[in-house]
Amino acid sequence: MNTPLMNQLGVVKRHILRAERGHVDHLGQFGSATVHEAMGRVGLMKPYMRPIQPDQLVAGTAVTVLLHPGDNWMMHVVAEQIQPGDIVVAAITAECTDGYFGDLLATSFMARGAKALIIDAGVRDVRILKEMGFPVWSKCVSAKGTIKSTLGSVNIPVLCAGSLVHPGDAVIADDDGVVIVPAADVARVASIAQKREDLEGEKRARLAAGVLGLDMYNMRGPLEQAGLKYID
Amino acid sequence: MNTPLMNQLGVVKRHILRAERGHVDHLGQFGSATVHEAMGRVGLMKPYMRPIQPDQLVAGTAVTVLLHPGDNWMMHVVAEQIQPGDIVVAAITAECTDGYFGDLLATSFMARGAKALIIDAGVRDVRILKEMGFPVWSKCVSAKGTIKSTLGSVNIPVLCAGSLVHPGDAVIADDDGVVIVPAADVARVASIAQKREDLEGEKRARLAAGVLGLDMYNMRGPLEQAGLKYID
Amino acid sequence: MNTPLMNQLGVVKRHILRAERGHVDHLGQFGSATVHEAMGRVGLMKPYMRPIQPDQLVAGTAVTVLLHPGDNWMMHVVAEQIQPGDIVVAAITAECTDGYFGDLLATSFMARGAKALIIDAGVRDVRILKEMGFPVWSKCVSAKGTIKSTLGSVNIPVLCAGSLVHPGDAVIADDDGVVIVPAADVARVASIAQKREDLEGEKRARLAAGVLGLDMYNMRGPLEQAGLKYID
Amino acid sequence: MNTPLMNQLGVVKRHILRAERGHVDHLGQFGSATVHEAMGRVGLMKPYMRPIQPDQLVAGTAVTVLLHPGDNWMMHVVAEQIQPGDIVVAAITAECTDGYFGDLLATSFMARGAKALIIDAGVRDVRILKEMGFPVWSKCVSAKGTIKSTLGSVNIPVLCAGSLVHPGDAVIADDDGVVIVPAADVARVASIAQKREDLEGEKRARLAAGVLGLDMYNMRGPLEQAGLKYID
Amino acid sequence: MNTPLMNQLGVVKRHILRAERGHVDHLGQFGSATVHEAMGRVGLMKPYMRPIQPDQLVAGTAVTVLLHPGDNWMMHVVAEQIQPGDIVVAAITAECTDGYFGDLLATSFMARGAKALIIDAGVRDVRILKEMGFPVWSKCVSAKGTIKSTLGSVNIPVLCAGSLVHPGDAVIADDDGVVIVPAADVARVASIAQKREDLEGEKRARLAAGVLGLDMYNMRGPLEQAGLKYID
Amino acid sequence: MNTPLMNQLGVVKRHILRAERGHVDHLGQFGSATVHEAMGRVGLMKPYMRPIQPDQLVAGTAVTVLLHPGDNWMMHVVAEQIQPGDIVVAAITAECTDGYFGDLLATSFMARGAKALIIDAGVRDVRILKEMGFPVWSKCVSAKGTIKSTLGSVNIPVLCAGSLVHPGDAVIADDDGVVIVPAADVARVASIAQKREDLEGEKRARLAAGVLGLDMYNMRGPLEQAGLKYID
Repeated sequence: MNTPLMNQLGVVKRHILRAERGHVDHLGQFGSATVHEAMGRVGLMKPYMRPIQPDQLVAGTAVTVLLHPGDNWMMHVVAEQIQPGDIVVAAITAECTDGYFGDLLATSFMARGAKALIIDAGVRDVRILKEMGFPVWSKCVSAKGTIKSTLGSVNIPVLCAGSLVHPGDAVIADDDGVVIVPAADVARVASIAQKREDLEGEKRARLAAGVLGLDMYNMRGPLEQAGLKYID
Repeated sequence: MNTPLMNQLGVVKRHILRAERGHVDHLGQFGSATVHEAMGRVGLMKPYMRPIQPDQLVAGTAVTVLLHPGDNWMMHVVAEQIQPGDIVVAAITAECTDGYFGDLLATSFMARGAKALIIDAGVRDVRILKEMGFPVWSKCVSAKGTIKSTLGSVNIPVLCAGSLVHPGDAVIADDDGVVIVPAADVARVASIAQKREDLEGEKRARLAAGVLGLDMYNMRGPLEQAGLKYID
Repeated sequence: MNTPLMNQLGVVKRHILRAERGHVDHLGQFGSATVHEAMGRVGLMKPYMRPIQPDQLVAGTAVTVLLHPGDNWMMHVVAEQIQPGDIVVAAITAECTDGYFGDLLATSFMARGAKALIIDAGVRDVRILKEMGFPVWSKCVSAKGTIKSTLGSVNIPVLCAGSLVHPGDAVIADDDGVVIVPAADVARVASIAQKREDLEGEKRARLAAGVLGLDMYNMRGPLEQAGLKYID
Repeated sequence: MNTPLMNQLGVVKRHILRAERGHVDHLGQFGSATVHEAMGRVGLMKPYMRPIQPDQLVAGTAVTVLLHPGDNWMMHVVAEQIQPGDIVVAAITAECTDGYFGDLLATSFMARGAKALIIDAGVRDVRILKEMGFPVWSKCVSAKGTIKSTLGSVNIPVLCAGSLVHPGDAVIADDDGVVIVPAADVARVASIAQKREDLEGEKRARLAAGVLGLDMYNMRGPLEQAGLKYID
Repeated sequence: MNTPLMNQLGVVKRHILRAERGHVDHLGQFGSATVHEAMGRVGLMKPYMRPIQPDQLVAGTAVTVLLHPGDNWMMHVVAEQIQPGDIVVAAITAECTDGYFGDLLATSFMARGAKALIIDAGVRDVRILKEMGFPVWSKCVSAKGTIKSTLGSVNIPVLCAGSLVHPGDAVIADDDGVVIVPAADVARVASIAQKREDLEGEKRARLAAGVLGLDMYNMRGPLEQAGLKYID
Repeated sequence: MNTPLMNQLGVVKRHILRAERGHVDHLGQFGSATVHEAMGRVGLMKPYMRPIQPDQLVAGTAVTVLLHPGDNWMMHVVAEQIQPGDIVVAAITAECTDGYFGDLLATSFMARGAKALIIDAGVRDVRILKEMGFPVWSKCVSAKGTIKSTLGSVNIPVLCAGSLVHPGDAVIADDDGVVIVPAADVARVASIAQKREDLEGEKRARLAAGVLGLDMYNMRGPLEQAGLKYID
């Protein structure tokens, strides 16, 4: 088994293998909940990661950046590595709530073709970011700025909000959260998600018509076997 | 004194005594803050319970469900016990942030006549839930799904977000929080709330005209007696 | 050095020196992030202070109030000290999540000319407050009311959400947070903020055109010197 | 179903039905974990309740007190209701971290025969409390004192750290936490706990001898059936 | 009113006015709870500040240091400003849990005569610190080290864990928490604390003899007046 | 780059490559702080992971287990995979505070030669665990037991308290925290740690003699260059 390069600081990896665009776009037709189920219930970031804007769904490929607490120097380094369709995933080496990212960096990221930012820390200028239409999922919002004095790394595997993210992995984010799909798994996961989705339409119609999940999923037997008792 | 049936697992109580509809509807004309005051400042859930949608006020009768961490099996069992006008109150036996509830269950709950869900855990598909117009108050939002393997109970008294809820109690929820009114108290509490509300219109007019609360409530004497000093 | 009057309870200071209106208005043209940078990165309240309404920016002069947990008596005392253009900054002597402030007090504060409330505790009636157009930044929302039985103080220096606030200081609040500018510093800070802002327009244009921050800020040399390595 | 008297403030109930001493003492031979299992996994307070002293196990009957945030007046009222063998269970009407209890109150409680204090808030003088040998389980430690100005109640049912406690219930507390056994259930729960304990000695011996739980509990079949796969 | 120099970074103040030794030593005869009461219930740090060692009580004069997240460079600068009897009070410009301080710095601080460290962040080498007998109150413990690249300040007023600390103020810390007494107030506060303490011996004896606080403090009348009702 | 098998559930890997015993033992001569520095400041678990016992330092090789919230079935499966010198690292698929581990499992783990348990959840029977001398680092303590009904996995890479752990990695844990050293890096990291340690003795002696870090590390020049100013 290959140990990820978690402890390389001061490294920028220029060439990464991105998940195939077609499959990532396919994943982007489903919400994070469906993708997370299709993954076998792994890969989801912690629920404290929240969007600064409502009702957005994005899908893209991860470029990763590891930053120090209170220091956003590497944000400028990662900007150069962005390709159209990428989503920047930013991890911090320790807990931090500072605002690492505002409207100027967003302007630069958008000019490079970035689709969103996922950051395990704070952002600022959120009113302007929403006006610009640049989606962000973050731990918090904070006006507190950062300095530029310490190296981190770009495009190494990072731990972000409880998920392991390799550069090139697919990132699916919406109001329900952020889920990571390993680049090697996007086709398989998109296919499973599609099957789930195909089945949901009919289920929804039956439930809307008043059929109970108890009957639709044949749960009455198993519940009785498990010992469920009805009393008056 | 009667000990509540807190430790019965695997039980579904089919017949419960619901708070009278007319009084519940009356309570629904006031916000949670007014009802909470009318209750004598008890019955409020902890402030971490937040709506997924803004500007909603609902009032209904509680059907309760007790679930295990990471397991939403009993959500299907409780669905069958819903009657029009009910609000499902879901408690978990331990802290959990998983997404127990999404658009399919919401479809089923709405088909049964449920007015809202109150859950001391997470929900998902929140964008769709808002589009469907099904109100939810929850501890968090999470794309993480749950399994269906362990029994809980339905319509037993539960502790939900710091409030004791008996099946049939009135539930009032809005942007300020969720308050529970025991079924036996709805008429009395609605009457007190009405009296508070009746007085507020005049007070509001006087305050808007620049009258100070200090004068309107005759506070200057008590404040001076308590030792308040004005300095320059 | 002058020790602030932190331990005077039961005191209302009637005459305070407010930051000059013109400079405060000038500060109000910038967001909290810009002002915080211009301050040298101090004076920002903790990021748990969040607005109850989106997309608002206010600037005003602080009148301060120190309250006891669960007791909002002094809110009525501070109301009398409000002058048009003031922002009430409310601190509590211990952690508390109660709803100290609702629509009646907001009506009174607005009648006195208050521009906003900043409170290190909870508020309620938030739907109505938004309709009234009275902006609030708070730690939380809670329907739980308070009693009126214990003295606090008005217009003493307070610690609110991690910031020291003297009466008369400028308060700048928006979606990014709340920043305090000492009354003596408003002219200087506004001037620095203006210079930052003047430079940002050109920077934004260049970044939007695809110029990288790495080049615009001449970071490539310092990064290489710090040891940054590019690999393939 | 009987609604508990949760909303009676300003009430002291003098005569309560205490769980039978013999059964409470019997429960005190087991730790909170065993009792909690014997209860069917209900009745446990939240894990933030921690002892101020290590290695203590106490069992007694609850006298309850409901207090306001920052106000310990009712602590003196509850003292009079203590009988030898009682444990005081103190709940607060809102989140509070103040130090409600110190060495003077502990002296008084000990003189009345109290065996411990369980409080969903803070305590102080903890070094002296440990020297005095008065056990306390609390949410936190804080030197911050309280005032004496607002009524609460004594010996009403309270919600303390997520558990419902009726006066007279058995309280079992040790390093693992605090569990409440309804007075009506003490005999039955003690008997179940005893059976669990009787079986544990033999199990422990077998496990110590190297027998695996997999074999001792016959888990290999069910695990295989559930789909567990061994790979190399 | 004098605005504290909160926003001076990169400054070391060499000459500070320390609270008088005799009064500080006098304060050190009381615990933090007694001193906090004598202060009028202000000056206490938040209760998350905990000692790494049990059963210690220290009193000294504050030398203050303001540090950046993840950067302990100024710890070496403050070491030079320590005089025998001082306690270092370390604040961070943003939330941080890193371990800023270990056995080497403790060796240096002890050599300079420091009596303790109070830090609103993490420390490490705690087993060795306890063996060395150097007391620490901190927000947490963390093995995570820090860098040395950003300036902070020494001996400016700082906000540490919710308390305003001026250099030279008295610091009293024990198991109950950390309280700050302004240098100008030490004599007055020590005198009030002494009076409280003098009264406590007799009170303790009476309570131990079974006298109730209800009677000793003459609370029965006020409680009845407030509406307290005894029921059976 | 090899994507870790994070999403295989229901898998037990029997043969893992353990870090070499000699190097692990060597690492065990240093504390977690020194090892973490030697690693380049990566690999440390979050500081909420605390020991249940003071003053312990352990080093061993990781066997990993991934569990579901509220379900400890896989604890029995992992027991069989333990070899002498191993440390069990237990991760949960979602936040959970239940007590997954008590004295019976500890008896079994000790019989298999386990040196410790690291768990991102709760444990119970902590008094007995301490008496048995079985060290545990956990997120919390809770008497709440778990069920046995859902598969997880054994010896797959897991995310535990913010660290990525591969089976066979070295685990170093003491009062300062828990650090993970990839199996491939143990020799290198032990060598760096040894060098750090060798230098510390002399440094400690000089600091104890009153030499300042400012001089010992030649910091005065860089500080002046960075703009540090001394004032009186």
